[in-house]
Amino acid sequence: MLDYKLLAALAAVVEQGGFERAANLLGLSQSAISQRIKLLEARLGAPVLVRASPPQATAAGQRLLNHVQQVRLLERDLRHDLPQIDSDAGRTRLRVALNADSLATWWAAAVAPWCERERVLLDQQLEDQDVGLRRMRSGEVAACLCAVEQPVAGARSMLLGEMRYLAVASPAFVARHFPSGLGSADVRKVPAVVFGPDDQLQHRFIRQLGVEGDFDYHLCPSSEGFVRMLQAGVGWGMVPALQVTAELRSGQLCELLPGWSQPVPLYWHYWRTGGQLLEGLTAELARRAPALLAADVQG
Amino acid sequence: MLDYKLLAALAAVVEQGGFERAANLLGLSQSAISQRIKLLEARLGAPVLVRASPPQATAAGQRLLNHVQQVRLLERDLRHDLPQIDSDAGRTRLRVALNADSLATWWAAAVAPWCERERVLLDQQLEDQDVGLRRMRSGEVAACLCAVEQPVAGARSMLLGEMRYLAVASPAFVARHFPSGLGSADVRKVPAVVFGPDDQLQHRFIRQLGVEGDFDYHLCPSSEGFVRMLQAGVGWGMVPALQVTAELRSGQLCELLPGWSQPVPLYWHYWRTGGQLLEGLTAELARRAPALLAADVQG
Repeated sequence: MLDYKLLAALAAVVEQGGFERAANLLGLSQSAISQRIKLLEARLGAPVLVRASPPQATAAGQRLLNHVQQVRLLERDLRHDLPQIDSDAGRTRLRVALNADSLATWWAAAVAPWCERERVLLDQQLEDQDVGLRRMRSGEVAACLCAVEQPVAGARSMLLGEMRYLAVASPAFVARHFPSGLGSADVRKVPAVVFGPDDQLQHRFIRQLGVEGDFDYHLCPSSEGFVRMLQAGVGWGMVPALQVTAELRSGQLCELLPGWSQPVPLYWHYWRTGGQLLEGLTAELARRAPALLAADVQG
Repeated sequence: MLDYKLLAALAAVVEQGGFERAANLLGLSQSAISQRIKLLEARLGAPVLVRASPPQATAAGQRLLNHVQQVRLLERDLRHDLPQIDSDAGRTRLRVALNADSLATWWAAAVAPWCERERVLLDQQLEDQDVGLRRMRSGEVAACLCAVEQPVAGARSMLLGEMRYLAVASPAFVARHFPSGLGSADVRKVPAVVFGPDDQLQHRFIRQLGVEGDFDYHLCPSSEGFVRMLQAGVGWGMVPALQVTAELRSGQLCELLPGWSQPVPLYWHYWRTGGQLLEGLTAELARRAPALLAADVQG
């Protein structure tokens, strides 16, 4: 079998973001961690880490991390069946990638009872919904939420529902920039707010209006910051209806095209060999997510 | 003088996160962009980009980007004095690094009128307040908000105020895990929520309780997701008082140590050679930020 002491050192360095923290976690010296990584690289004949700050796994290292996570999930099932195997039945860590807007809205309510019941600690990683499968493919996470249906090799996907995005801005912003509707100004010159380089929702909205080309935008990589920027009148932007129910009702925000929305499907992707823990979370999400995602319709 | 066509190509690739988007922005072909980068590297005798996805600037590349941003800010001042120099007086882009909790709370209200007045588009980059100077030092951003006072070479810093962090959880979570106060359980075994590897607030709180060593935590790199996780009863965590005024008042969240808070100072760092635009933003923040940051006390 593989030498799991070496693999555990690699996982600790990547998950903790450094050699010193990995050493603290495992109760070892930094030089012991460093030796284990070097030994692993010598056996493999290839580097497993890029020595940057924080250290990052090479392609070979990521493949090993993928394996470590699969083994951890299988060990958890073993512990369930043979609880005497170790006395320190601590909490299990599970790495999941999800889009910021899910994390900012329905996700916590969906997973909270399950985390408590199954004694799971979540390592949540943000990924835009259009590119979330990147971390799944690289083996960094055991599951992910994204807008793409097609699963990566070794995984399955399941549709949970959709998030409806609305184009909104503050009433003062609309009065200033679109005094007589969206057609009354060159929308490319009215500042938008965009979450990050991978966020194409605003681009799609503008194309939907029949306008081509580049437009002015602020970058704001925070879901809550995004809504604050819109409320403060910095720009217009696309937000999940779920997230701005209260702001729309109170009149702090209003829709640029009332009644129009852009649906974005949400698929749950999970490893086939993730064991009972991942299957349990999948069943829990299938039960709870659709109602939480549909709450914006009643709102 | 330097060949700014080459530098503009480099800036576009890094800021847009790819060669194709850079080509679209500049109205060039991808191969033209690629040739400009190669020419720049040939002249410099060193690579300026790591060809990853997205492409990243090398140390030499970052030094060049730093220069590009300084020149852009100086050009803005020139345009103000000589408006006839170009007819397309579009909006200026300004890259700023800030901590997620500021972006999620007071920041938008502080900068909104200034952005509109000065026709500025913000590229906001998230950095934990303990490490925000990293991007300032590397020249990726022209200004940053962080908890450290000491400015980097070529920059100044100014204290804006402080954010008060409270240790909070849902009442049900407190009843379940701390039925008779914080002393009634091993706090290391009660799950916390931590923003990311650089977030030490929860570690400091635990050390403040006189407890040493590792503890159980979820990772949640989203300010709004963080509050949702606490509300859903997934864990306890440290949040700015500003962000949870309503939740504390309504009883959805409660303090683990009522009356106790951890202040985190916020310093504004900005380039000395940033020109009038950056000086104007600095003056605006000096005027508006202190009252916005102090709003949690009245809350």
